[in-house]
Amino acid sequence: MAGNTFGQIFRLTTFGESHGKAIGGIIDGCPAGLEIDLDFVQHELDRRRPGQSTLTSPRQEEDKVEFLSGIFVGKSTGVPIAFIIRNKDQRPEDYNEIANIYRPSHADFTYDQKYGRRDYRGGGRSSSRETASWVVGGAISKLLLKMENIIITAYVDQVGTIFLEKNYHELDLSNTESSLVRCPDPKSSREMEKYIEELKKKGDTAGGVIRCVITGIPAGLGEPVFDKLHAELGKAMLGINAVKGFEYGSGFKAAGMKGSEHNDIFKTEAGRITTVTNYSGGIQGGISNGQDIYFRVAFKPVATLMSSQETVDKEGNPVTITGKGRHDVCVVPRAVPIVEAMAALVIADHLLLAKVSKL
Amino acid sequence: MAGNTFGQIFRLTTFGESHGKAIGGIIDGCPAGLEIDLDFVQHELDRRRPGQSTLTSPRQEEDKVEFLSGIFVGKSTGVPIAFIIRNKDQRPEDYNEIANIYRPSHADFTYDQKYGRRDYRGGGRSSSRETASWVVGGAISKLLLKMENIIITAYVDQVGTIFLEKNYHELDLSNTESSLVRCPDPKSSREMEKYIEELKKKGDTAGGVIRCVITGIPAGLGEPVFDKLHAELGKAMLGINAVKGFEYGSGFKAAGMKGSEHNDIFKTEAGRITTVTNYSGGIQGGISNGQDIYFRVAFKPVATLMSSQETVDKEGNPVTITGKGRHDVCVVPRAVPIVEAMAALVIADHLLLAKVSKL
Amino acid sequence: MAGNTFGQIFRLTTFGESHGKAIGGIIDGCPAGLEIDLDFVQHELDRRRPGQSTLTSPRQEEDKVEFLSGIFVGKSTGVPIAFIIRNKDQRPEDYNEIANIYRPSHADFTYDQKYGRRDYRGGGRSSSRETASWVVGGAISKLLLKMENIIITAYVDQVGTIFLEKNYHELDLSNTESSLVRCPDPKSSREMEKYIEELKKKGDTAGGVIRCVITGIPAGLGEPVFDKLHAELGKAMLGINAVKGFEYGSGFKAAGMKGSEHNDIFKTEAGRITTVTNYSGGIQGGISNGQDIYFRVAFKPVATLMSSQETVDKEGNPVTITGKGRHDVCVVPRAVPIVEAMAALVIADHLLLAKVSKL
Amino acid sequence: MAGNTFGQIFRLTTFGESHGKAIGGIIDGCPAGLEIDLDFVQHELDRRRPGQSTLTSPRQEEDKVEFLSGIFVGKSTGVPIAFIIRNKDQRPEDYNEIANIYRPSHADFTYDQKYGRRDYRGGGRSSSRETASWVVGGAISKLLLKMENIIITAYVDQVGTIFLEKNYHELDLSNTESSLVRCPDPKSSREMEKYIEELKKKGDTAGGVIRCVITGIPAGLGEPVFDKLHAELGKAMLGINAVKGFEYGSGFKAAGMKGSEHNDIFKTEAGRITTVTNYSGGIQGGISNGQDIYFRVAFKPVATLMSSQETVDKEGNPVTITGKGRHDVCVVPRAVPIVEAMAALVIADHLLLAKVSKL
Repeated sequence: MAGNTFGQIFRLTTFGESHGKAIGGIIDGCPAGLEIDLDFVQHELDRRRPGQSTLTSPRQEEDKVEFLSGIFVGKSTGVPIAFIIRNKDQRPEDYNEIANIYRPSHADFTYDQKYGRRDYRGGGRSSSRETASWVVGGAISKLLLKMENIIITAYVDQVGTIFLEKNYHELDLSNTESSLVRCPDPKSSREMEKYIEELKKKGDTAGGVIRCVITGIPAGLGEPVFDKLHAELGKAMLGINAVKGFEYGSGFKAAGMKGSEHNDIFKTEAGRITTVTNYSGGIQGGISNGQDIYFRVAFKPVATLMSSQETVDKEGNPVTITGKGRHDVCVVPRAVPIVEAMAALVIADHLLLAKVSKL
Repeated sequence: MAGNTFGQIFRLTTFGESHGKAIGGIIDGCPAGLEIDLDFVQHELDRRRPGQSTLTSPRQEEDKVEFLSGIFVGKSTGVPIAFIIRNKDQRPEDYNEIANIYRPSHADFTYDQKYGRRDYRGGGRSSSRETASWVVGGAISKLLLKMENIIITAYVDQVGTIFLEKNYHELDLSNTESSLVRCPDPKSSREMEKYIEELKKKGDTAGGVIRCVITGIPAGLGEPVFDKLHAELGKAMLGINAVKGFEYGSGFKAAGMKGSEHNDIFKTEAGRITTVTNYSGGIQGGISNGQDIYFRVAFKPVATLMSSQETVDKEGNPVTITGKGRHDVCVVPRAVPIVEAMAALVIADHLLLAKVSKL
Repeated sequence: MAGNTFGQIFRLTTFGESHGKAIGGIIDGCPAGLEIDLDFVQHELDRRRPGQSTLTSPRQEEDKVEFLSGIFVGKSTGVPIAFIIRNKDQRPEDYNEIANIYRPSHADFTYDQKYGRRDYRGGGRSSSRETASWVVGGAISKLLLKMENIIITAYVDQVGTIFLEKNYHELDLSNTESSLVRCPDPKSSREMEKYIEELKKKGDTAGGVIRCVITGIPAGLGEPVFDKLHAELGKAMLGINAVKGFEYGSGFKAAGMKGSEHNDIFKTEAGRITTVTNYSGGIQGGISNGQDIYFRVAFKPVATLMSSQETVDKEGNPVTITGKGRHDVCVVPRAVPIVEAMAALVIADHLLLAKVSKL
Repeated sequence: MAGNTFGQIFRLTTFGESHGKAIGGIIDGCPAGLEIDLDFVQHELDRRRPGQSTLTSPRQEEDKVEFLSGIFVGKSTGVPIAFIIRNKDQRPEDYNEIANIYRPSHADFTYDQKYGRRDYRGGGRSSSRETASWVVGGAISKLLLKMENIIITAYVDQVGTIFLEKNYHELDLSNTESSLVRCPDPKSSREMEKYIEELKKKGDTAGGVIRCVITGIPAGLGEPVFDKLHAELGKAMLGINAVKGFEYGSGFKAAGMKGSEHNDIFKTEAGRITTVTNYSGGIQGGISNGQDIYFRVAFKPVATLMSSQETVDKEGNPVTITGKGRHDVCVVPRAVPIVEAMAALVIADHLLLAKVSKL
């Protein structure tokens, strides 16, 4: 109800504030018998954590996850898997100044309106530090998906005004992780890096777009009315900090196309029903059709600037602030594993939901 | 679980197939004491129903809603409000041919994959006839929102390649309902009508974009982590048949902007904290900030063509089909009240959720 | 949330008031492919309906159920199964007098306190007429359970001061339906009938106890912490109108027993692990162990008396009322199919939940 | 879904095994602004912890709770309140022997059936050590209830064959905590202590009954159909380890009463509508009427005996076991704070639910 739980059968409930004692969560509904590769989980966390490169926030967090329950002799036991990540490099004193000030395009004002108070240290619960817990949940989901040969891969498609003008089929996605900005095209990657470095010098920030591809998905996942598979993916993505838009398959471009261009004609290939094109993005009527699922997620530029801005305090008096704390110039490179994690949570949940839809 | 319920406190559960006996639903969680204006509910349904003009499906459905419970002496009593809409102009025989054939870019194939069977008459539950029940739920929600002076208005922003190149501030939204395509700009409206008529002659179809604006919304609605207000709106919109994308506030354009351009600076006006710009689209950190909420929804072109297409049958054999049944060339004009209805359901739910977030 | 939905995966949502247009519900989450025997459903309803004998309420309701969706060519399609039962023999005028009066031990006062208003006709939603919808949901559940050879049988164990002093093993449960009071022991049945007839003459009413037995249940159903199988059964039973208590297995008697007497010793029989005794009532740690599940449900006497009682009106003024409307002297005979229906809903739900608890 | 979450708006999700690293939970939906008295929370835990007296399990657990989130400057902030209790005095080696053996009337066999595996150390998740987390959740709930002057008090009503033959009105409940067995009547308390000591010598165990009283409750709490207030209380109690029965108000005795005896006549007292008697136990039609709520909970005798018992191993071979580990002879004294905690969680949840039931 209070919005801290994600999923229906495979459920993640999270807690924690940016500069509190710890963040973490409970994964409930993971089937018993799943082999839990702890190194893989930590590796996924390492992909998200700050301090990875000169392009990301210099906050030093080891982000070591500790599992407290639900795993026995290397396997899930079917009961809740709880985990915590202790906050280490906290500097709440960086935030004393903003206890009574509303940072532009942050959640300070809206939290105060909703709750009548807020933990102002580093944005409290509205900080994207929260997403570390999502990555843990996503990593466990990915282990479940791997057993079905479902693979989720995201990469950076746009940083500011630099676009990767290729479709995912034309790219070697194994390049993504070796790119500082997680763009699999080496040329675009270099341009994006340069773009970010220049904004950094000016104390300014950039937005971007992430594309995600899900392969190996069986036909028949998703619920047909309100919980359509793409609606669930969309909600998952729109929940990520700074996201402003979501499109799947042909997306916004579909609005300008004709039915005769857009329809995905069925054909039989190697005895299996498939489609000639995939404008549908692997989902028809809310249910997967066995083709690749692909979608794009738009991120706004980071709200914390290292230059001065006008704003108001709690009483509405005008004040000037300059960003403190340690922040990214552009979040999309670090958001790649977050997008994957949220997609994995959705697919894992629907994999289980599909088990009860027919006799 | 099975995806036929929408909302957390204010909940709509629906049922029904396109050519079955009836469609309908149960609205649970509507607070007691709400005056139910039945004429308003029917008026909303009339905005959605087929046969409104030469541009829409000629199926003749009166779409008369009958309420069965939950209303007494003109007011909600706090218990479930059930309603049904009998299907009248059914022609299931139009669909006998497709019992064993998969129409391209429809849900026939995916339903068979998920359930091992399907009610093939008119698309069964995957038909957008289902959305009539959403409009009923949305109408009741709107009555609740009216008490708080929250107004939801949608209109057509794009049809095929015809764009309405104005922001909502520059338009007279009271023109929307008098336009056959529900575009408030008379010139664009005429172009869109012409565009649709031409496609109709060719047996082809168009997509489009709807924009929606919510005014009068108080600050403090929305849950901060997974159930962010825009994530809930996004899921609601992505659940509508044929939707391929959602963006709110600055949307996909934000990806190309700099933080220094995009941040919404706070100021005090008439003793109230407000913002200079509204790139945030009225939502910060997932919670409404009291500014207008606005978003855009992209629709793909209608999948049923009145020209012949290649496809396969259940066994994978190639077949050729031509569209039967009665269909729209472009759904966006009729989808305007559906977008409003789903938005109303989301806001009504969060209005109630906000009552329990602080002492 | 508003308490009109039962179940997690196999879910029943109901609506309707005693003297409104109709009652009914939506069954969501029934797996596709289940053969729906409509005669069986109607037969279950007939077991519950008023006017069965001189011992039950003379209200004449045919209780003919109409299914509106979710069934195609005789089988469930996996989408919501909606149904309505029109109210026919309504006499709301019987209730005009109580619009402003609080009947003792009824829900009139508490509904007014909760909702600020109520549909006073025949108790509105608090009437046990509501349970007809549960019986429909239960009948569909029973069809699912039959496929797994799970059988649910309830019978009357006590009426007023007449006890059936035998355990269920000692009884021929096939006698239940031929007994006017649904007591399988002919001698006790006759005593119970006489007891009820005598109270009827005096305008007084009786309570009673129902026992229910579930056989053929596989081991492994139930969730271990808050949703223990017996906790779910208990909640289901306590939701039935007039129920005051629930016990399973050894029940309240267990409190006086020693561990050395009470423990169910495991043994191997025909290669299968079973128990020597069954004080556990077929459930250990909240999960079924494969033995019979059995429990007892206590009902208070009917609150509507055909003799005069003191009470107050809305303003608190003293008034005297005499029961109107058509009521049972003792509800337990008609509650037998209701107990079975609610038990069936619980077991069907947990049968589906068990499908996702391990790989 | 997997049964580890309790509540609808005010929700507790728990994790942890008896001899794992830690137990704990997340309280979500606690309204912002509640003063959190940490000493009170610890005090409630101390009432439950083992090692309190010679009558309880000698396991030495400090049960020190650590809060990780959701509290700032002494008050709840409206976001999840997470807490952990580290397990200290673990002796998993006590349980090696039972890795492959099924203890009678324990959950070993049923967990293996459900999950295909189990954490056998000390019963894993089926251990009543889990209830420490419930007491933390209950303590936070009690703080919310105190603000509305709602008080929940439980005490021991029966131990084995020793009954406390007085109603709660005739007792001085302030004596409860000074009694080793939490029975407020000094004479009965001494008899119960003696009864337990004698069983301890024999290596045997006892059951018992707890009664709970809720005073100060406003009228109007509870949902009318499936989530009746007593059905929610019943489910909460039946979820407690070893519970076999629940009754409220007149309970099982009601079955033998006549309507003319049982009805609670309304009257006006000091301008307020109240009832002459309270057989209803403060709840009518599932909704509180403002009178005291009272109920009784039956516990079976502890299953772990310190004498030898026959049983089988995983392969079904007969084996003999003798109880190891540290266990109570009778759990009811320590279960008193658990009963109160679960009742508090139910009432807190319904206090919040009541905020959205009318305009």
